[in-house]
Amino acid sequence: MLTRTQSQADLGETVLDLGRQERCGLPEVIYGEGKSAEAIIEIITSQKERGIPTLATRVSPDKAERILLKFPDLRYNPVASLIRAPAENLPRRGSVAVISAGTSDRSVAEEAFETAEWTGAETVFIKDVGVAGPYRLISRLEEIRRADAVVVAAGMEGALPSVVGGYVAVPVIAVPTSVGYGTAFGGITALLGMLNSCASNVTVVNIDAGFKAGYVAGLIAKRAARPAMDK
Amino acid sequence: MLTRTQSQADLGETVLDLGRQERCGLPEVIYGEGKSAEAIIEIITSQKERGIPTLATRVSPDKAERILLKFPDLRYNPVASLIRAPAENLPRRGSVAVISAGTSDRSVAEEAFETAEWTGAETVFIKDVGVAGPYRLISRLEEIRRADAVVVAAGMEGALPSVVGGYVAVPVIAVPTSVGYGTAFGGITALLGMLNSCASNVTVVNIDAGFKAGYVAGLIAKRAARPAMDK
Amino acid sequence: MLTRTQSQADLGETVLDLGRQERCGLPEVIYGEGKSAEAIIEIITSQKERGIPTLATRVSPDKAERILLKFPDLRYNPVASLIRAPAENLPRRGSVAVISAGTSDRSVAEEAFETAEWTGAETVFIKDVGVAGPYRLISRLEEIRRADAVVVAAGMEGALPSVVGGYVAVPVIAVPTSVGYGTAFGGITALLGMLNSCASNVTVVNIDAGFKAGYVAGLIAKRAARPAMDK
Amino acid sequence: MLTRTQSQADLGETVLDLGRQERCGLPEVIYGEGKSAEAIIEIITSQKERGIPTLATRVSPDKAERILLKFPDLRYNPVASLIRAPAENLPRRGSVAVISAGTSDRSVAEEAFETAEWTGAETVFIKDVGVAGPYRLISRLEEIRRADAVVVAAGMEGALPSVVGGYVAVPVIAVPTSVGYGTAFGGITALLGMLNSCASNVTVVNIDAGFKAGYVAGLIAKRAARPAMDK
Amino acid sequence: MLTRTQSQADLGETVLDLGRQERCGLPEVIYGEGKSAEAIIEIITSQKERGIPTLATRVSPDKAERILLKFPDLRYNPVASLIRAPAENLPRRGSVAVISAGTSDRSVAEEAFETAEWTGAETVFIKDVGVAGPYRLISRLEEIRRADAVVVAAGMEGALPSVVGGYVAVPVIAVPTSVGYGTAFGGITALLGMLNSCASNVTVVNIDAGFKAGYVAGLIAKRAARPAMDK
Amino acid sequence: MLTRTQSQADLGETVLDLGRQERCGLPEVIYGEGKSAEAIIEIITSQKERGIPTLATRVSPDKAERILLKFPDLRYNPVASLIRAPAENLPRRGSVAVISAGTSDRSVAEEAFETAEWTGAETVFIKDVGVAGPYRLISRLEEIRRADAVVVAAGMEGALPSVVGGYVAVPVIAVPTSVGYGTAFGGITALLGMLNSCASNVTVVNIDAGFKAGYVAGLIAKRAARPAMDK
Amino acid sequence: MLTRTQSQADLGETVLDLGRQERCGLPEVIYGEGKSAEAIIEIITSQKERGIPTLATRVSPDKAERILLKFPDLRYNPVASLIRAPAENLPRRGSVAVISAGTSDRSVAEEAFETAEWTGAETVFIKDVGVAGPYRLISRLEEIRRADAVVVAAGMEGALPSVVGGYVAVPVIAVPTSVGYGTAFGGITALLGMLNSCASNVTVVNIDAGFKAGYVAGLIAKRAARPAMDK
Amino acid sequence: MLTRTQSQADLGETVLDLGRQERCGLPEVIYGEGKSAEAIIEIITSQKERGIPTLATRVSPDKAERILLKFPDLRYNPVASLIRAPAENLPRRGSVAVISAGTSDRSVAEEAFETAEWTGAETVFIKDVGVAGPYRLISRLEEIRRADAVVVAAGMEGALPSVVGGYVAVPVIAVPTSVGYGTAFGGITALLGMLNSCASNVTVVNIDAGFKAGYVAGLIAKRAARPAMDK
Repeated sequence: MLTRTQSQADLGETVLDLGRQERCGLPEVIYGEGKSAEAIIEIITSQKERGIPTLATRVSPDKAERILLKFPDLRYNPVASLIRAPAENLPRRGSVAVISAGTSDRSVAEEAFETAEWTGAETVFIKDVGVAGPYRLISRLEEIRRADAVVVAAGMEGALPSVVGGYVAVPVIAVPTSVGYGTAFGGITALLGMLNSCASNVTVVNIDAGFKAGYVAGLIAKRAARPAMDK
Repeated sequence: MLTRTQSQADLGETVLDLGRQERCGLPEVIYGEGKSAEAIIEIITSQKERGIPTLATRVSPDKAERILLKFPDLRYNPVASLIRAPAENLPRRGSVAVISAGTSDRSVAEEAFETAEWTGAETVFIKDVGVAGPYRLISRLEEIRRADAVVVAAGMEGALPSVVGGYVAVPVIAVPTSVGYGTAFGGITALLGMLNSCASNVTVVNIDAGFKAGYVAGLIAKRAARPAMDK
Repeated sequence: MLTRTQSQADLGETVLDLGRQERCGLPEVIYGEGKSAEAIIEIITSQKERGIPTLATRVSPDKAERILLKFPDLRYNPVASLIRAPAENLPRRGSVAVISAGTSDRSVAEEAFETAEWTGAETVFIKDVGVAGPYRLISRLEEIRRADAVVVAAGMEGALPSVVGGYVAVPVIAVPTSVGYGTAFGGITALLGMLNSCASNVTVVNIDAGFKAGYVAGLIAKRAARPAMDK
Repeated sequence: MLTRTQSQADLGETVLDLGRQERCGLPEVIYGEGKSAEAIIEIITSQKERGIPTLATRVSPDKAERILLKFPDLRYNPVASLIRAPAENLPRRGSVAVISAGTSDRSVAEEAFETAEWTGAETVFIKDVGVAGPYRLISRLEEIRRADAVVVAAGMEGALPSVVGGYVAVPVIAVPTSVGYGTAFGGITALLGMLNSCASNVTVVNIDAGFKAGYVAGLIAKRAARPAMDK
Repeated sequence: MLTRTQSQADLGETVLDLGRQERCGLPEVIYGEGKSAEAIIEIITSQKERGIPTLATRVSPDKAERILLKFPDLRYNPVASLIRAPAENLPRRGSVAVISAGTSDRSVAEEAFETAEWTGAETVFIKDVGVAGPYRLISRLEEIRRADAVVVAAGMEGALPSVVGGYVAVPVIAVPTSVGYGTAFGGITALLGMLNSCASNVTVVNIDAGFKAGYVAGLIAKRAARPAMDK
Repeated sequence: MLTRTQSQADLGETVLDLGRQERCGLPEVIYGEGKSAEAIIEIITSQKERGIPTLATRVSPDKAERILLKFPDLRYNPVASLIRAPAENLPRRGSVAVISAGTSDRSVAEEAFETAEWTGAETVFIKDVGVAGPYRLISRLEEIRRADAVVVAAGMEGALPSVVGGYVAVPVIAVPTSVGYGTAFGGITALLGMLNSCASNVTVVNIDAGFKAGYVAGLIAKRAARPAMDK
Repeated sequence: MLTRTQSQADLGETVLDLGRQERCGLPEVIYGEGKSAEAIIEIITSQKERGIPTLATRVSPDKAERILLKFPDLRYNPVASLIRAPAENLPRRGSVAVISAGTSDRSVAEEAFETAEWTGAETVFIKDVGVAGPYRLISRLEEIRRADAVVVAAGMEGALPSVVGGYVAVPVIAVPTSVGYGTAFGGITALLGMLNSCASNVTVVNIDAGFKAGYVAGLIAKRAARPAMDK
Repeated sequence: MLTRTQSQADLGETVLDLGRQERCGLPEVIYGEGKSAEAIIEIITSQKERGIPTLATRVSPDKAERILLKFPDLRYNPVASLIRAPAENLPRRGSVAVISAGTSDRSVAEEAFETAEWTGAETVFIKDVGVAGPYRLISRLEEIRRADAVVVAAGMEGALPSVVGGYVAVPVIAVPTSVGYGTAFGGITALLGMLNSCASNVTVVNIDAGFKAGYVAGLIAKRAARPAMDK
């Protein structure tokens, strides 16, 4: 017999990993790409029966429309292409700053922002502070330094995480975005730049992986905010 | 005039960033590659005058010998090629688990281990638990789950962080190592595998960047361990 | 004059290799990509005249419709984009397990499944057992271990074949799928991971090459099942 | 408590996977690269105590000398850089043909040959039959067709497996070798050629991975040779 | 003042190199990609005024229709996407064999064929003789050996030029085609295979560059066919 | 007969382009890599006869020793591996700032510095101002802004040129250096970062091409400094 | 409080860097890709209020139509996909030559041309002078040599900048274009060729980055043209 | 029984393809890399018995010394690392021009030169005519135009074949050399440039493959020079 951390639900197409929250601190997330609206609805239904708060990424507007018709309490962020359970009334635990370099990095940054919100963190969004206009970042440093973890989304040469990393005392999760042309190579250049950051506190996630950045930042914030007895 | 977070020291070849600890929570680290023993000694001298605890990475045995002759209180780990100030008597803050997949990943894992120790974290080392022998990892899970952050060093296909990620509720910092041959491509394959991990809590650092993984894990652990009033 | 293993049929556009079954144990397969429905029909007609059981891969739904109108006894699997002669009533020789990591790997896995069926193997399909939810795979191990050969289709970091390889005593044919984004590089990351698998029993085929995986698995199963006198 | 398939032995540096033979049909193999002669001797000692027949790959001549001084019953093949337990007097189960394209592919081919021998297969070595001299291969076809599995080692453009694949009815395990210059790219070109082979029965292993090719070929041969009752 | 080999014609958008035939033996060819039907018509008009026989590659069917309406004496080959002046009644000089591996390589092979015809060579087309069915090529060798130069178009692993090269005594111009999927990488794998051909008489042109292959083959044939006095 | 801009000198191995200064504003430079000390001496001798001021790059210390023995008036910079005619007493024309990110970028930066000096520019060297310590650069901005052209040498993520570019009104010539490990890829990551710089005034030269950066910066400075009548 | 070089304007989506002209000599440029017509209109409005002359790149025809309806004084160049403030009546400062290799490089060359015009330079356009017809370039050399900076746009093998570089005494800014097929790799081949140019005066910008080339050429020309007192 | 074109000789390690001259017009060539002096001597002995004129490439000086001790009639070219039978007294058939761009391309160019000599062609060597000094090539054009085939060896950006191609009416065989640094990528950049040459008469061989270029050029020249009756 399966223990609680091992429990599963077979939905035919999909096998839900119900022990995920138990093992990993947060429930399984729905990766919407390539799944039909029906398949997503089936998973959400199964989650709701068990009280699991939904997060679904990469959901196109037309699928979202059909899903929200069925679950009007969920929220859809069209820039982030993301559906999630509302979390505004829950107590916040820890804080995350999400920073974007340019307007084109916004969809990725919003995916990180929504995910961090879903993990229960207090979240602040600092936008359009790319390195070519250095004073834009400097004027926002105070806000950024209050966070337990920082997400930085940037495309092109991906220099912003290095610069931010030089100013803060918490982990910086760098997300390369597929913005740019020519040798931007759909985000590879930004990724390589971030992996080679001269700032010691920068780790990296996959190109356009706003979700993963927000998720990890949320985990860090959550742990930073545990009450003393919990430790 | 420079403020405290902006203060510098010009050593001729090198310009020390003295405000680093103030801004970034931990002092500047010496990257030993391409620096002479003399240059490293000069930097350490300058650090000691200001009470900064030294960490120097990528230091070859012969350079280390000359440096320790001058500073016998420092410690050299030849597997990790790393020199650091002893930290054993200081109170530990937070905990880090460092995991290696195979015997060849050990030098990178030790670099992460020593760095995490230097940041002030309580650190545990779990070795040789690669995925081809799955029961080796499972028998160590309890120890791993006690940590505030987990570092996983692996080469070849780099699958171990994904597997570990599926079992724990804290961030996993994956370090690809340059172990393997042919299409291992000196760690690129492991890096790509880790960036594409299906586990949501995995972030990645550069190939062989044990230092950076240990540093970030230490930062996370430190923040997780702050006394309540600090929050 | 051509011997039986050298015999050919010139259809104008295509030159059929009629000696293939004689030389290679299984007849020539039709690669549907870039061939018109008419060209495929012509080849099938020629095969039927010689009693060759058809297998056609990469056939789009609209082409399939026109082909099945002509040959209603054939079967089309729209997920696998594959047409084949029915084989259900023939005696099964050897057994193949086809495993998929996630729902998005399904079309490739189905191509492998259908091809293995066509080769005459008894085939079982194990789906959605990716490594992030480790207990899903463990609960299916017994079924998998009964097979003479195992096909594993996985995208993203492609870690599943390594994990499966650590549990079974037969060859694992790994098929990287083009699932994922960013540095998944359309399957290259999964391919590299599989080539560098730390499990000794893993060999690899091209990205999305479900057909080839099923074909080779079928060959292995067939040979494993030969009656004693045949050896 | 660990079951038999889960049993391990902790040698300090290394954790032996003693359940491997039980789970995977063949015992754990020693990857000699980066291990000292002493570490290898320790593992072999531990294996001998349990009656496990040794196979150690990538062992340099000087290490081999020290190991054979301790275990004079083992055999060292200097071309293959491989040490193994003698297996000549054991009954052979199934058969494997190992083919090399040119003289420079020989070390990889010999690694495959020795490994196949160690798995218990009857093994034949066909050398120097590259495609530029097509009649050399044709004159050896009869021998090749007797095998249950074929290993083909080739560098440069890696065309030989495709050509062999067109003549035989069993799986062809293609091993790209790092032979060639310029755009041979240390075996990548041969690897890519083999992955894209137009022959349906070709699967591929890592560059220079003679061991893995011989291992899988041995597994196939073994299964093909099982007595009827076993099936 | 410009000499005859230096003469030009400025058409506004395009500057025609009228000295090309004088310097290079054959007139300038029109690369149709990205040029409007009008621009191509303007160039052809200018060529006709000077008696230059037209060759225009990469011309889409709709552009071709408009061009042939204007110049009904020209011929359009829709498979090759190529327009050219008819050359059938001119005396042939030298001979070229164009070989294709599979049906999908046909458009590239036809581009080479038409170009070779335009250069004045006698041209033979051998199709669908890929290496997986080895006897198809062998049965055509006699025809191939009559040519002064051989063009081989192949995709996937690109092994055919090596095999052909082993049978003939003239230069083989290999053209990689963008046929295949996954690691075929749009022809890169075939290109690399051809560059590393173990046959000494194989040179290579760009992916899908049927035109260039036919052009060079034509040059070789032409020179081979010069009357003795010309030498 | 050759005009002055076309004049050459055939030294056997090498053909000197004597018209270079006339055509290109500066004389031909000696690329020392792969040339013997004797060959370099022969070229310098030939240059001296014609009053051409020497610049020789990539000259190893042992070759330099033999060359300076012959020409004691030349100067050797061992960090830059460069020999040049002294230029200190000539009037300076225009100004160039050379900036290095870290101590390991120094040899490339010195090559740029020496070359800019040789072109006749007034040159200033700003070192060790990488982005992780942002205040180091800011404290030197005034000096940098005085230059007619700026060279920035940086390795790792190559972010410094973007940051510098945001502060100055002249062209920034970015030189990626081969400093770093893992995914620094010997300077490719820095190169890509610089090509994708979000600062509009950044152009790029080859990895480690300090010479070319200094040369172009010198050309710009020279033109900027022309007396009015010259324009 | 922000100084003049630090001043910003927050437009909601975008944060304008108003200090750019002060710091960098030319105002901020609008990168149109991924911005709506409305967002671009908002930025232009804000620029006009401050007397900043607009330059907007990568603007599609339909967006341009809506923008010009609002600002009929601006000009749209559909080949360059670029909108800019008219500058014809302003005094010209310095001169720039823009050269294109073939007709397909024209859109990139026109982007460079328009940008150079916008910077205030006198600009000349030399088109269709690719290296296969060498006399076309030679006949235009006199015009080219009059410029203070030269932009060369070329695709395919990107050889033209090297050839031009051998004839002129000013910096050559090479722009690789994404023209070509197969191994042109969307401009990578041209980029690599230009980075490795044997001409010392060639620097490079990103693929298709006509804007950046024109911008830097304009900066050089401007500085070259400063009145003596300014120096 | 083997026909004459199929005949072989088994030397143990090597299987000689004795039918090569019959089938391919020229005998088998010895690739010296990785073969011992003894192995090469054995092959030469076997060739001499059959009257086959030897060509051995990639032979290091120390091996060459031992080989020439045995066969004093052979010649060794240390720059080309090549041994061959003398051919000076034989009648020449056809002509080949070998051109090198810079002094560092010489070893590759000499390999081509020696091979072309061995094939029986009259051969001329034009050196150091790289594109940065355009008048050096132009002054040699007359000599080049006399050849039946032209070989061009160039590194760095590999532009020379395109320029040469624009001046001649015969095939140009381009050989990329591994000369250069940084993004020269050991010859890949030159290779890509040559594959994308805008000159229609350029075909390409592998990096540093001087042998293959000389071989193919020799084949073309030979055919061009056939007496009329032979046609």
